[in-house]
Amino acid sequence: MKHIDIVDVLKGDYLGKEVTVCGWVRTSRDSSAVAFLELSDGTCFSRLQVVVDKAKLTLDPECTRNGASVLVKGEIVKAYRGDGVELNATAVCLLGACPPEYPIQKKRTTLEFLRGIPHLRLRTNTFNAVFRVRSIAAQAIHRFFHERHYVYVNTPLITASDCEGAGEMFRVTTQPYNAKYESEEAYYKDDFFGQKAGLSVSGQLEGEVAAMAFSKIYTFGPSFRAENSNTTKHLSEFWHVEPEVAFAELPDIIEIAEEMIKYVISAVLTECPDEMTFFDNFMEKGLKDKLYNVVNSKFGVLDYTDAIEILKKADVNFNYPVEWGCDLQTEHEKYLTDVVMKKPVFVINYPKEIKSFYMKQNADGKTVAATDLLVPGIGEIIGCSEREADPEKLLQAMKTRNMDIGAYKQYIDLRTFGSVPHSGFGLGFERIVMYMTGIENIRDVTLFPRSVGNIS
Amino acid sequence: MKHIDIVDVLKGDYLGKEVTVCGWVRTSRDSSAVAFLELSDGTCFSRLQVVVDKAKLTLDPECTRNGASVLVKGEIVKAYRGDGVELNATAVCLLGACPPEYPIQKKRTTLEFLRGIPHLRLRTNTFNAVFRVRSIAAQAIHRFFHERHYVYVNTPLITASDCEGAGEMFRVTTQPYNAKYESEEAYYKDDFFGQKAGLSVSGQLEGEVAAMAFSKIYTFGPSFRAENSNTTKHLSEFWHVEPEVAFAELPDIIEIAEEMIKYVISAVLTECPDEMTFFDNFMEKGLKDKLYNVVNSKFGVLDYTDAIEILKKADVNFNYPVEWGCDLQTEHEKYLTDVVMKKPVFVINYPKEIKSFYMKQNADGKTVAATDLLVPGIGEIIGCSEREADPEKLLQAMKTRNMDIGAYKQYIDLRTFGSVPHSGFGLGFERIVMYMTGIENIRDVTLFPRSVGNIS
Repeated sequence: MKHIDIVDVLKGDYLGKEVTVCGWVRTSRDSSAVAFLELSDGTCFSRLQVVVDKAKLTLDPECTRNGASVLVKGEIVKAYRGDGVELNATAVCLLGACPPEYPIQKKRTTLEFLRGIPHLRLRTNTFNAVFRVRSIAAQAIHRFFHERHYVYVNTPLITASDCEGAGEMFRVTTQPYNAKYESEEAYYKDDFFGQKAGLSVSGQLEGEVAAMAFSKIYTFGPSFRAENSNTTKHLSEFWHVEPEVAFAELPDIIEIAEEMIKYVISAVLTECPDEMTFFDNFMEKGLKDKLYNVVNSKFGVLDYTDAIEILKKADVNFNYPVEWGCDLQTEHEKYLTDVVMKKPVFVINYPKEIKSFYMKQNADGKTVAATDLLVPGIGEIIGCSEREADPEKLLQAMKTRNMDIGAYKQYIDLRTFGSVPHSGFGLGFERIVMYMTGIENIRDVTLFPRSVGNIS
Repeated sequence: MKHIDIVDVLKGDYLGKEVTVCGWVRTSRDSSAVAFLELSDGTCFSRLQVVVDKAKLTLDPECTRNGASVLVKGEIVKAYRGDGVELNATAVCLLGACPPEYPIQKKRTTLEFLRGIPHLRLRTNTFNAVFRVRSIAAQAIHRFFHERHYVYVNTPLITASDCEGAGEMFRVTTQPYNAKYESEEAYYKDDFFGQKAGLSVSGQLEGEVAAMAFSKIYTFGPSFRAENSNTTKHLSEFWHVEPEVAFAELPDIIEIAEEMIKYVISAVLTECPDEMTFFDNFMEKGLKDKLYNVVNSKFGVLDYTDAIEILKKADVNFNYPVEWGCDLQTEHEKYLTDVVMKKPVFVINYPKEIKSFYMKQNADGKTVAATDLLVPGIGEIIGCSEREADPEKLLQAMKTRNMDIGAYKQYIDLRTFGSVPHSGFGLGFERIVMYMTGIENIRDVTLFPRSVGNIS
């Protein structure tokens, strides 16, 4: 069906021309002389106003119903009101009717109600804006790395290993639910892969493999966590951006992470002006100012040890006590970002006991070259570290944690054959979409969100 | 570590300047007076020649070993031989030694041998080229759709439904291997999602949901097939490009698919000239000519019914007999592409019995508006169809197949509320990478390939 995208029509290039457009009626006004249809085809946030002169054209009343799909021909003219354009219809054809039971009506509905109709909620203003921002942000991430010579790699999702400590894993199997075996070994020997397999919680270990050949790589794909918790910030399935960079030490990777965050936010502010104004008006007052402030400020860097001192001196009753060695809780992170720094901050050099085996051990013997990027209102959005490049120190850290060293032979090989300093980070993609849109529940930035008990 | 990417150095911009580069020694020649190190940092296919004047610089012999990682400072000068540049070293520092047990040595090895060391094979010329082409192709796909106002969506990987007939599914569970339940229902009630869950074989059904709001969407993510077969063209985990377009009928989506294929091939030919010359020389003689021919020719379109007539008249003894109604086997597809058409061809309008329930039923009552794009040497790389937009016809097709209609309520809703003609296709991403590189085994275009019994 030859037709023009509404986003192109609204740019004004077709002024004075005859066009065909297709779309869904989002709202309409109908009088005896003239009818107005607000038409969306989803290619942009705005709608095209279609004007039907009923003296010239018989309009099927089905075409004025909210949700109906139509094909419209006519001339693009200057809008009667405002600076834009509208379409004077010469033909309006019904493509698909929409009965009055249609659950998306003009009245305001809650995000919670819309969560119950994930297949229809995308047709509302809010989700139209959310998922366009998500798409533009994803494009920006790919562009950012591509422009800087990173190789995009797809690390495996089904894996026999785990990225130690990152979270609970789902098991992947083709065994029937009631398979009966005398031993675990026999069960998995007969399973699809001949051994136990699960869904990856991170592509980091395989990403390191690729970085040791291409220097600069990134993954951008799904990761999985089988965590039995229902929060507004966690999902069982999420999209994960994981760059890994050879010849990069902690300060280098911090610079890259900061540059990437600013690049993505800038792209969304530039490419989604209507969507961002909508969010600023209806989701989070001051959102655009907040984001411009992030783009224009230098992110903070705070040593974990200093952060602990600040928290100990804070005139706040924290629920979790603060002592050197403790992990930072949400309330602590919130105090650091929202009260102390008032901007994103990298907390660096955490105690080695609360961090992973693969992180580079600092010379002090107590801390590792790891950092979390904390942002106001969201908390951690990036986990980052320099990786231990010394095979002896790596082995020692694994032994301390009683890990199965044989299972990590490939990973250790990377340190045996031409080891180099390298660093990487992981960004939870949905987290930054939430941050940029003011949406508070991760379920509302995910097409079909998965969490414990929820797979509708 | 401040340094310059070798891809930038080789462009010549740094001629006459002092630089620092990092990388791995891929080969070296050492004499009493001078040593030459061929350095790769993986940012491009070519290597940088480092010249060490031993009268001026003491060179650690470890730095000349194949696989060692080094940091080199010096001046970029015109190459002694050829048009390029080389680096006159003023300092060479060993970052990581590489012992002689390193399995990647200068001698030629087979792809099969390298499959046994997936964590090291990326350091060879072949895999350096393959995965850069794969990355550039992925970037081109994102760019193609982004430039045309498509919204990139991430459909769920863990799913409770299946895309009927697309293949066997993996099951996702957190139940222990020896969980004992009286009934299947009780087992899944206690499982993570409270019902049976599996890994998605296609994002199409959810992609259609998004297309009914945004008109033009695409997915680009992993899909899974638990097929108990070991071929050179199938994997249990692969990356899948699935656009879905509203207001598009079969001829429209064929046009989009052809345009996309040509766009991706053009991007790779333009952006990876060294890699493509390498493949043309060492993987498939005439590869570049083949690809230029694809870019410059109009793809064929062949009605299934005509294809059957051609095959019946062919002077070939096929292993599988040909009759109207049969599915095309690899030998038939190969005859059509390699002997008859000698270029990619869309076979259209298949018998409805051998295709899926969701495909638009043609007026003849016998066929559906479906097409496969067949390419010489590979076979099917795209499966495509217009979707049935009429709820009554869709329901009838589901009933004929004894499907559980209740499980598809959301999918049917899309036809109830503002249904529109729409079409989509699925591209197996690894297939097109194979086609563009001349690589014959899908395991060699995949970082860590997964298939039955294989998860190393």
